[in-house]
Amino acid sequence: MSGFFITFEGGEGAGKSTQARALTAALRALGKTVVLTREPGGSPGAESMRELLLFGDAPLSHRAQILAHMAARADHLDTLILPALKRGEIVICDRFHDSTMVYQGYGLASAAPDILAFIRAQRALLACEPDLTLLLEVPVDTGAERVRIRGGRADRYEAEARGFHERVASGFASLAEDFPERIARIDATRDEATVTSDVVATTLHRLPR
Amino acid sequence: MSGFFITFEGGEGAGKSTQARALTAALRALGKTVVLTREPGGSPGAESMRELLLFGDAPLSHRAQILAHMAARADHLDTLILPALKRGEIVICDRFHDSTMVYQGYGLASAAPDILAFIRAQRALLACEPDLTLLLEVPVDTGAERVRIRGGRADRYEAEARGFHERVASGFASLAEDFPERIARIDATRDEATVTSDVVATTLHRLPR
Repeated sequence: MSGFFITFEGGEGAGKSTQARALTAALRALGKTVVLTREPGGSPGAESMRELLLFGDAPLSHRAQILAHMAARADHLDTLILPALKRGEIVICDRFHDSTMVYQGYGLASAAPDILAFIRAQRALLACEPDLTLLLEVPVDTGAERVRIRGGRADRYEAEARGFHERVASGFASLAEDFPERIARIDATRDEATVTSDVVATTLHRLPR
Repeated sequence: MSGFFITFEGGEGAGKSTQARALTAALRALGKTVVLTREPGGSPGAESMRELLLFGDAPLSHRAQILAHMAARADHLDTLILPALKRGEIVICDRFHDSTMVYQGYGLASAAPDILAFIRAQRALLACEPDLTLLLEVPVDTGAERVRIRGGRADRYEAEARGFHERVASGFASLAEDFPERIARIDATRDEATVTSDVVATTLHRLPR
């Protein structure tokens, strides 16, 4: 794999999409070839599952939800991400494995050990980890307020109660402690331009010359 | 696990649904508690994915298709099959893991070793194998003719070319050789009542007293 795979992670309203776009623009301005994508979705097959994953009415068991996310991710990897990395390009993805670990594992399943182990086994089977993860951190209340101002249809996670979002935030923090080499924590309470500077500097520092 | 888990497997037009109903009736007549179900689907969450799996337009990569089937199966297991087995009941399921191995692995992926290994790893992670599998075997042409007479909307597998269905038939035969303790091969070219007698006798022989 000669490319470089960057993921953005964080709770609701942390500014992931905005910062992913800004980093893409900055890297392209430096002459890099960048594929910007997002999850759930990112490829036609995976997008066809996005509605089911984010807005589906039917309840799914914890294992089923995890596998449905992994199914969408496998299509995204096989048809978009892995071919781009193989061509030596930079791929920037808004949410990836860590979101599954945190939302399904820490959030919905309250960090039940068998569910966390199931997610770890699944991500090992898909066999593709990011080279760098930018974790944008804001307090739960700040994120919720940003989402409220943004408006639009709330997906099944945005609609969860406060305790859920607190478990998500502490899940991300716990992953950042477990994988300090891969995950860079970014204080996303600062103004957008300052966060972008930090995101770009952190990326350039890690990117192979 | 104190119950008994029976699956029916076989190609198109082998008579699985008919024989699954007949076996259910026979066991109930003997005073057994039987849950009859089918895949893909079988629980509300899994049924919500059935349309996507059988009739979806968007192409999905091999790994994505496998994972989507496993997602539906996980919901089916977690909400219906495992609780029934835990209560000591008999569960009869029309299609299960072997269909994924044969349709996705042998059929669509032409038995690519990495895909077969991926399916084996996935089924191990779901951690539930049938106690008895009744494999109904008919020649590909006989099955195709029965499907043609039955009519209705062809799903994405029924619509596949003849070579696909031949790979499916040889995939089932290969599984039956690998797992002779679990898989009973039933000659399903015979008339319906004769096949039912065979199915019921085979089951009673294997069922714990």
